Amino acid sequence: MNAHEALAAHIAEYHDLLCILNTLKWDMRTMMPAAGAASRGQQLATLSKLAKSIFVSDETARLLDAAEAESAGAHPDSYQARTLRQTRDAYEIQRRIPADLVGRMAAFGAESEAVWARAKDEDDFASFKPYLRRMLALNIELAGAIGYEEHPFDALVGQFEPGMTATRLGVIFAELKTRVLPLLERIIAADAPLPLNLWEAEYDLTTQEKLCREMTALIGFDYERGRLDCAPHPFEISFTRDDVRITTRYDANYLPMSLFAALHEAGHGIYEQNIAPELTRTALSADLIGQYAVGGASSGAHEFSSRLWENQIGRSREFWRLHFSRLRARFPDQMAAANAELFYRAVNRVRPSLIRVEADEVTYNLHIMLRTEMEMALLEGAIAVDDLPEVWNAKMQEYLGLTPPDDRRGVLQDVHWSFGGFGKFPAYTIGNIMAAQVLEAAHKQMPALAGKLAEGDYQTLLTWLRENIYRHSRAYSTDELLTRVTGDGLNTSPLLDYLERKYADLYKLN
Amino acid sequence: MNAHEALAAHIAEYHDLLCILNTLKWDMRTMMPAAGAASRGQQLATLSKLAKSIFVSDETARLLDAAEAESAGAHPDSYQARTLRQTRDAYEIQRRIPADLVGRMAAFGAESEAVWARAKDEDDFASFKPYLRRMLALNIELAGAIGYEEHPFDALVGQFEPGMTATRLGVIFAELKTRVLPLLERIIAADAPLPLNLWEAEYDLTTQEKLCREMTALIGFDYERGRLDCAPHPFEISFTRDDVRITTRYDANYLPMSLFAALHEAGHGIYEQNIAPELTRTALSADLIGQYAVGGASSGAHEFSSRLWENQIGRSREFWRLHFSRLRARFPDQMAAANAELFYRAVNRVRPSLIRVEADEVTYNLHIMLRTEMEMALLEGAIAVDDLPEVWNAKMQEYLGLTPPDDRRGVLQDVHWSFGGFGKFPAYTIGNIMAAQVLEAAHKQMPALAGKLAEGDYQTLLTWLRENIYRHSRAYSTDELLTRVTGDGLNTSPLLDYLERKYADLYKLN
Repeated sequence: MNAHEALAAHIAEYHDLLCILNTLKWDMRTMMPAAGAASRGQQLATLSKLAKSIFVSDETARLLDAAEAESAGAHPDSYQARTLRQTRDAYEIQRRIPADLVGRMAAFGAESEAVWARAKDEDDFASFKPYLRRMLALNIELAGAIGYEEHPFDALVGQFEPGMTATRLGVIFAELKTRVLPLLERIIAADAPLPLNLWEAEYDLTTQEKLCREMTALIGFDYERGRLDCAPHPFEISFTRDDVRITTRYDANYLPMSLFAALHEAGHGIYEQNIAPELTRTALSADLIGQYAVGGASSGAHEFSSRLWENQIGRSREFWRLHFSRLRARFPDQMAAANAELFYRAVNRVRPSLIRVEADEVTYNLHIMLRTEMEMALLEGAIAVDDLPEVWNAKMQEYLGLTPPDDRRGVLQDVHWSFGGFGKFPAYTIGNIMAAQVLEAAHKQMPALAGKLAEGDYQTLLTWLRENIYRHSRAYSTDELLTRVTGDGLNTSPLLDYLERKYADLYKLN
Repeated sequence: MNAHEALAAHIAEYHDLLCILNTLKWDMRTMMPAAGAASRGQQLATLSKLAKSIFVSDETARLLDAAEAESAGAHPDSYQARTLRQTRDAYEIQRRIPADLVGRMAAFGAESEAVWARAKDEDDFASFKPYLRRMLALNIELAGAIGYEEHPFDALVGQFEPGMTATRLGVIFAELKTRVLPLLERIIAADAPLPLNLWEAEYDLTTQEKLCREMTALIGFDYERGRLDCAPHPFEISFTRDDVRITTRYDANYLPMSLFAALHEAGHGIYEQNIAPELTRTALSADLIGQYAVGGASSGAHEFSSRLWENQIGRSREFWRLHFSRLRARFPDQMAAANAELFYRAVNRVRPSLIRVEADEVTYNLHIMLRTEMEMALLEGAIAVDDLPEVWNAKMQEYLGLTPPDDRRGVLQDVHWSFGGFGKFPAYTIGNIMAAQVLEAAHKQMPALAGKLAEGDYQTLLTWLRENIYRHSRAYSTDELLTRVTGDGLNTSPLLDYLERKYADLYKLN
């Protein structure tokens, strides 16, 4: 075994442990009886600690040194060289993060999340404040350990989006606001109720599940290498490309909840299932900093795939023109008076709302900007935890013209800050931007694509995405991938063009 | 932290890893898409190797030495002293078993099992012979590494039944045969078809599942701390007493398959769920030699609980007299012409058959004796692998009066030998013997018990079993437990009395 193979064998076993952690998490969120929570917590803690100790061990350093010496002449662009660089970077960062800090964050995060859940239930921000203050301090400590040049947020967002910074996000957000806010104003002025409310009927849950299975298989999620289950907070998780689990949730009245969550998670799953087989059990199929077995260039790149299949494909007029009959076959009574166009309008209605997870394509990014801007301000000390409700409500008014009647539907709505997940929100917006860029490039490079999609041929797009994006997993950064595919880095114009085009048509804005 | 606590913390983490291995196995057998098998194999191999390396580490020796020094004055009968002795014994045995041998057995076992599956399908014993020969040699090597005084079988069966030997089993088997063979002869002479064949109807699978859930909850399986799923080969597995998973399988025509498998696995699950909470994550809740998180005094003791609830309770006249109405409520058409007595007779009909897993209470132990006697003879070289079909068929004729028409229904029927599981079969018979002994003692100590059971009060029995047996997990050996409860070690008379009494009545044998 040469040095490269020896390192690969070591990382493969580390990767196995990360996949096992994913299995434990999947089971916890879908199958585990409630009473199993305490034991599962101990199992996760033990295995996480063990995995981390293996990755930051002197053994890893020894194997890395040897592999680097052996690969000195390798082409810097090869998978091998990229694997080595990413492993080295993650190793150095992991060695800088004190094991003790990770332990404190995990332990305090569990407690803080429980306090947050109660505070949200009881609309009691005051009781959550000391926890949020401490969690903020821990995140500042973490940012310091990871290291950054300009802004502590750069260290935190960099865990999920290598290369992303507060400054760059500031530019992106400004570009988005300049065109989204006027668009939203025009939409609101033109909005009118639809002639029929489809969400007053009851939709049998077993039939909803069958529909979700049918539609996700249709766009290319491979059930030979995956499964769909139910979870209160839908998610996708993989235990290698050959075993990818997706979930959705059901509301007997509101069919879009299960359907679009399933398409969204299937979009994530399709990314994982189409990673090159030779990258299985390698550093390029794991977030080595987050210690999480996941492929894809970044969190944002993963959201690119989910958003693309959920929105750009799954909420398109062409999609429902073709497949509305499938929907009606499953729900003949509920859809008796509807048609493809009405359904298309119903699942694309734009309405400013207080809740992020219910937001449409136009307002969604405004919710993300609000949160991200507040995170940055908290980290740099420009605002204090005490100010949060006031700042939140002012921004809600500025971006969406709404003021939350209480903190439950305001600053307390998301779990992220409670467990310490600072820097995670931008991924959603990056994903939206990237989806528009990539799909625009795909149409340019394949003039026949629109016709294929209109005929229900999704394999052409999926194959192109596999070749250009999916198969590389984490080998290229988001910017590198985009430059290879579109000739440009992250660029907001295609998303803004797409939104203006789609909603001008939907709302007859000119 | 004192030395005892330090050892306990070390073992607790090791125990977490064993519970995680169980989670991976459960998922593999119930949920995993087929394509996930290769990845799962790697994950299991990596974690097994890691767990073993932690248990046989010098760290374990150091902690054991310190705890032994600290506990020198502890009462030898305390949980603490027993934990320490069992951990030490397992440590010494594990250190004697070469890691390399375990690896070779696991790797060869997987290959051999695949060859066996094909050989069984194609009724081709010859193709399996070289694999069985090699597996036999590996088991002889393993027995040598573990060590034994009289017979290599003692080392192997001792992994599952501490203290059991070939000599003792010889005596037990002779006692059983002396009374079972004549009983069987009389039953066969008296057997006649029932007036109605219940297994020609169709039993809806979803309703079967509901019935299984209802009946297992009725006898005391706690669904707050467990779940029931479907698996081709039903099993029970636990991830601590607070998360116990049972499975069953379904045949649309043959209702007893799902029902009695569910009761059987629930019996295993009830054992796990009633272990004392303070034994969670300790050496007393794991088979430290088999590296398997499981409670209970031994494999045989575990079968005691499953057989007791499945047969002594679940196949009793009192049980169906009370609950036949539940069955008829679920399957009104299929049960229209039946009654409690007919159903009781239908699920207790004795018929010598070629297949162990289909055997009734009377013939079951004969199948076990046949296999165990052959294993012993193979290990001591009294017979060769070449002779197996001939010996098998001769014994089948002797014990059951049948000759298999092919090896698929003969020597090739069980998976155990193919993956190297020598010494596992006696557990079933030990479980049957123990169930009869324990229930006899329970009735003697609680004269009201028969009345309680007839009224459907299973909690009285379960509470008694918890106090006397379940809660101790592995603290006492099977013989110790039996002596505490019945004043006697393993004794075949109660089982033989029970069988003669039940079947003399059923078949009016006088």
